[in-house]
Amino acid sequence: MTNISILGSGHMARALAKAMLRGNNPVQILGRDGPKTRDLVESLGPGATGGVIGAGITGAIVFLAMPHKDVHNAILEAGDSLEGRVVVDISNPVDVSTFDRLTTEPGTSAAEETARLLEGRADVVKAFNTTFAATLEDGQVGGQHLDVFIAGDSEQAKEKVSAVAAAAGLRPIDVGPLRRARELEAIMLVVMGLQVSPEHQHFNWDTALRIFP
Amino acid sequence: MTNISILGSGHMARALAKAMLRGNNPVQILGRDGPKTRDLVESLGPGATGGVIGAGITGAIVFLAMPHKDVHNAILEAGDSLEGRVVVDISNPVDVSTFDRLTTEPGTSAAEETARLLEGRADVVKAFNTTFAATLEDGQVGGQHLDVFIAGDSEQAKEKVSAVAAAAGLRPIDVGPLRRARELEAIMLVVMGLQVSPEHQHFNWDTALRIFP
Repeated sequence: MTNISILGSGHMARALAKAMLRGNNPVQILGRDGPKTRDLVESLGPGATGGVIGAGITGAIVFLAMPHKDVHNAILEAGDSLEGRVVVDISNPVDVSTFDRLTTEPGTSAAEETARLLEGRADVVKAFNTTFAATLEDGQVGGQHLDVFIAGDSEQAKEKVSAVAAAAGLRPIDVGPLRRARELEAIMLVVMGLQVSPEHQHFNWDTALRIFP
Repeated sequence: MTNISILGSGHMARALAKAMLRGNNPVQILGRDGPKTRDLVESLGPGATGGVIGAGITGAIVFLAMPHKDVHNAILEAGDSLEGRVVVDISNPVDVSTFDRLTTEPGTSAAEETARLLEGRADVVKAFNTTFAATLEDGQVGGQHLDVFIAGDSEQAKEKVSAVAAAAGLRPIDVGPLRRARELEAIMLVVMGLQVSPEHQHFNWDTALRIFP
């Protein structure tokens, strides 16, 4: 059993919480919006607790379930409470006004920026950026399991995230060092672009990116 | 029926040829190695013809079935014979000594470099870089069709490549302009790295990258 904290109360926070609870890992939700957070915690049922961002973080694994642009402030606010934990960056730094570019500079990634902000106080893992909320909540797409691509520089931290992903019925795939987040984020520019494209009506945020078999 | 030319005589040339013949599109193989090219053409049977690189190109669609580093010379040698054709860049500019970096600069792609070399003489399409030879030859993985991600700046050229991919029993997915090749090439650093990783024995150049469902 691993205690999980999720910073955020949106679609991805809900989906991650459901996945973690499926694997019998207790979840703490810390949201900015009090009533929304309370509603989410209540709907999740047993195993879920909640509070506002800034309250004490209890999870050994902390998911940053927020847009990339909000990560900087969240880390500042969390301060020392992230010390020694595994921080999971799930973000996709995609310019959602055009779906034509990443908002990060070439040669880096959102996850590497998160690691720089944390200055070694926590181990950063990139994961769950390729799993959309609806499919993650279901745990499958059309009877097929979901792949969770995991990048990070700490083997121990990646093993912890792999374990909770596997417990949720997903397939963790360790893809190497944290800098592989560049490629994991890049491909989502393609995959997210397909979801909003009028020429691809059958892709509607309900798809998954997978390696076969 | 679309005439296809394939420059190259290796694994990907063979796999592309089989896929195109499956769709009843005649194939011309132009290889550097005469005997090897002849053997390949013979093994392909009816619908396949062959010659050496430098011979007249007959295909409306021309696949550059060679490593990225050889594309420059192939285009120089082909000269005016590529004029007005659709040129398909299938390459993955991955440093195969480390599987840790792309050999292209950040902010560009092999396909865009190919387009620059052609100076507007032909329409360049990125496609078939995510389909490994063995799976492309089979046309499926574990009973599942293969996705062919297609990027390009000419809608007409992409439609031609989509049509021959669909005829081969594959699912073409138009992902947008040629610059999306950056992301299609980037993700293969991850996927190819997994094939050679001792920790992923079950990935052995027999996998496919797909969007589900």
